[in-house]
Amino acid sequence: MMVKIFDLDAGGKTIVVLNSRDAEELGVHSLDRVIIETEKDSLTAVVNTSEKFVSEGEVAVFDEVREELNLHAAQLVDVKARGPLRSKRYIRHKVKGVELTREEIREIIGDIVERNLNDLELASFVTALSMRGLSAGESTSLIEAMVETGSTLSFGELVCDKHSVGGIPGDKTSLLLVPVVAASGLLIPKTSSRAITSPAGTADRAEMLMPVELELSEIEKVVQKTNGCLVWGGSLDLAPADDLLVQIEHPLGMDPLLLSSILSKKKSVGATHVVIDIPTGQRAKIKTVGQARRLADQFTNIGKKLTMAVECAVTFGEQPLGFCIGPALEAREALSLVTFSKKKMSDLQAKVVTLCGVLFSMVQKVHTFQQGKILAEEILRKKAESKLREIIEAQGGNPEIRPEDIGIGEYSAEIISDEKGTVRWINNPGLVAVTSAAGCPKDRGAGIRLFKKLGDTVSKGEALLQIISEKSSKLTHAEHIAQETVLMGIIDSWEQNILLDRP
Amino acid sequence: MMVKIFDLDAGGKTIVVLNSRDAEELGVHSLDRVIIETEKDSLTAVVNTSEKFVSEGEVAVFDEVREELNLHAAQLVDVKARGPLRSKRYIRHKVKGVELTREEIREIIGDIVERNLNDLELASFVTALSMRGLSAGESTSLIEAMVETGSTLSFGELVCDKHSVGGIPGDKTSLLLVPVVAASGLLIPKTSSRAITSPAGTADRAEMLMPVELELSEIEKVVQKTNGCLVWGGSLDLAPADDLLVQIEHPLGMDPLLLSSILSKKKSVGATHVVIDIPTGQRAKIKTVGQARRLADQFTNIGKKLTMAVECAVTFGEQPLGFCIGPALEAREALSLVTFSKKKMSDLQAKVVTLCGVLFSMVQKVHTFQQGKILAEEILRKKAESKLREIIEAQGGNPEIRPEDIGIGEYSAEIISDEKGTVRWINNPGLVAVTSAAGCPKDRGAGIRLFKKLGDTVSKGEALLQIISEKSSKLTHAEHIAQETVLMGIIDSWEQNILLDRP
Repeated sequence: MMVKIFDLDAGGKTIVVLNSRDAEELGVHSLDRVIIETEKDSLTAVVNTSEKFVSEGEVAVFDEVREELNLHAAQLVDVKARGPLRSKRYIRHKVKGVELTREEIREIIGDIVERNLNDLELASFVTALSMRGLSAGESTSLIEAMVETGSTLSFGELVCDKHSVGGIPGDKTSLLLVPVVAASGLLIPKTSSRAITSPAGTADRAEMLMPVELELSEIEKVVQKTNGCLVWGGSLDLAPADDLLVQIEHPLGMDPLLLSSILSKKKSVGATHVVIDIPTGQRAKIKTVGQARRLADQFTNIGKKLTMAVECAVTFGEQPLGFCIGPALEAREALSLVTFSKKKMSDLQAKVVTLCGVLFSMVQKVHTFQQGKILAEEILRKKAESKLREIIEAQGGNPEIRPEDIGIGEYSAEIISDEKGTVRWINNPGLVAVTSAAGCPKDRGAGIRLFKKLGDTVSKGEALLQIISEKSSKLTHAEHIAQETVLMGIIDSWEQNILLDRP
Repeated sequence: MMVKIFDLDAGGKTIVVLNSRDAEELGVHSLDRVIIETEKDSLTAVVNTSEKFVSEGEVAVFDEVREELNLHAAQLVDVKARGPLRSKRYIRHKVKGVELTREEIREIIGDIVERNLNDLELASFVTALSMRGLSAGESTSLIEAMVETGSTLSFGELVCDKHSVGGIPGDKTSLLLVPVVAASGLLIPKTSSRAITSPAGTADRAEMLMPVELELSEIEKVVQKTNGCLVWGGSLDLAPADDLLVQIEHPLGMDPLLLSSILSKKKSVGATHVVIDIPTGQRAKIKTVGQARRLADQFTNIGKKLTMAVECAVTFGEQPLGFCIGPALEAREALSLVTFSKKKMSDLQAKVVTLCGVLFSMVQKVHTFQQGKILAEEILRKKAESKLREIIEAQGGNPEIRPEDIGIGEYSAEIISDEKGTVRWINNPGLVAVTSAAGCPKDRGAGIRLFKKLGDTVSKGEALLQIISEKSSKLTHAEHIAQETVLMGIIDSWEQNILLDRP
């Protein structure tokens, strides 16, 4: 068949378009697979069919396929139907409730990475995993297959790492934790992701302070020099199957691979000692301590099978961490809290010290968790700021950066309390919706500054929070949402408020 | 935003393409939904994003959206993010195992028909239905919603219909059953579908004898004149949600809506008395009589809720019906068996007489099933052929058509037995794979002619079947598959063959 070049991308997918009559002739239907063969190379692609797009005898290719096979217009290629994929059958096994073997999982992950499975099959797989769950054996095989089909890094024999299962806004812990761990002499090459719908990912926050899109060789230099880094992991090809599955899980609002996703990334960077933060609360991803404990057991257990020491910390997740939400605002807050002179710790600093305490005792730098916390606090007081600035410089940022150098949106509005009382609960998803309307995560300078947190007393007419935006239209939209939503439960008398639900 | 017309179809989907930066600005991601508004009209579309395909400020539309909104190039339209669909939440409820209410199912079906749900969401819904099943209440609500969102027909107060759950090749029952029922004086406006991957659908078979793509007004005339018809239902907009779901179910190889699909089509054509054929056998869709009985109970029970009398016949499904497989070959066979002079009935005729017997007793044309069968046999012997020719003529075909007028492929090859013995089992899926390689369903003249069926004795070197094809290359391919597959179990001594499996 004759190649028709179509000069656009198919969103990373390996798709070709055939004329409906040719497809019928080949015995393939839309979403079936064909093998495209040139003299030198061949590739499996998913078929779309069209009545008008391509003529009979033509095969239209998008950027992805053109580049992979190095095709040019009017080139002749062989196109033939590819038989059913074994991985497709294995997905149906999982749908039916059969536990998958190691080999079956490898086959599925291999076909995901080679883009052989179509979106319907991936959605079906993700749904089945959500409904059936994964056994410890399945999770382990899945993680191993994800790691094997991507790049892996190796920084040393003892490599620390930290991850949060996420779910509460404003969690800028890593920006402080990495310098503390690095300053203790341990290696912590931290890769992180950007936000998809949350107000900010760790990579977005770090980018306010320094470049985060580094080449592998650059990362190695930074880690050699400073013991740590804070980089975006997205372009490093670490466990790419995980990224491809996230593209399906996210629009479906499902998260069956939370654990596998985290541990596959950690294994890929060669981590040997990992602390997992599980923020737990009514409006967090993990709702109850019981649920958090079960997840923690799974993390530890599967970590063992992967020869990684994994410990979890179940942390207070009823409200945002710190007072700021949004990339720029959070970077400012992190930069001011990495110096620590006050007597009392903020919730952010307490979390950093706690997680470092876990890590320090795991690697036997200290004997007990308590000793680890004391060491972490000392480092946070004395060395963390200079270490952070060292990392900023090594990654190509300005080591003299001050909080006020980080630009934030010029439009702002305060949300005023109609009631007096005490803040008894905070609507995390509501706050996320407001920051999203204000422009996060795209507009880095947008976000929320909280004036009140749980337990604070509020007078009628007092400001609860400030919305910040780069555009006045977005500010108006965000204000509108804030006014329509109860963002904080301010309770004066319990009389009217004790009843949560009457099913 | 400015409309960019893209002169091709998106496979029936309501899709627009936005530049990635614009999508980010709107806060939508690939597969989210936007509302496109013109001065007169508006529509919900699923978003694809591209880096190169469209410039910032542009929205690219395919044929479907252009036609629906009557757009022209460079027209200015409003594009805004559409909030989360309620139906998406209900799909997640089903994933979690919550039974869906009538209203929730209506919402889902409404969004399916309006093309608001994207492929991932549909695949997730189909997978969840496969895994959780449907309660009788859910099935009923689903069917009602499917019927309400499509066209409905009304031919009279007593309307008969027949359907097979399918799964065995060569099942040309309807071509004989419709004339028998119509000749008895009952109405039977039979709509049917084309094959997707099976060798032939009833519409494909009927089309070898007469036109089947009729307008609604034409169908009414045919039924008025002859009491029956044999038309393609695909263009009549009967329960369109079912057709859209089949497009997802089929590539996934799942069939959770077998019952709902059949009954929604029957309800849409206004059927009041329906007989369902459930072919049952080791290599059929339904494997055991127990399974068939459970399905039959569901059919009858849900039929009642829909105020339709539904009875089922569990029939022998261990082998193809008749001797021919493939549209033209089956039409030939049907045309020769609609005249009935021999003493002994063929399996095809026996099935027709049996199903008609059920229908005749259901509508109380006779008192008992036995009397119904006797009446059906009499009609088949005396009136069915002339009634079939009457229908052929009314639909615009040649009423004088003879079997040999129906063209079949000119290339053929026989498959010879290596062994002697008795045919003990027949590999239905294997036969389907061979006919598919020979060109079915696209090449109407391709197919298989069986020389032997269950219980027949075979000598070594005797021909078991003949493969027929329109192209020599396809014949070669089909022969190759036939030689690699055991198509018939020919057993002389049981000694070597009694063991089916040793798990």
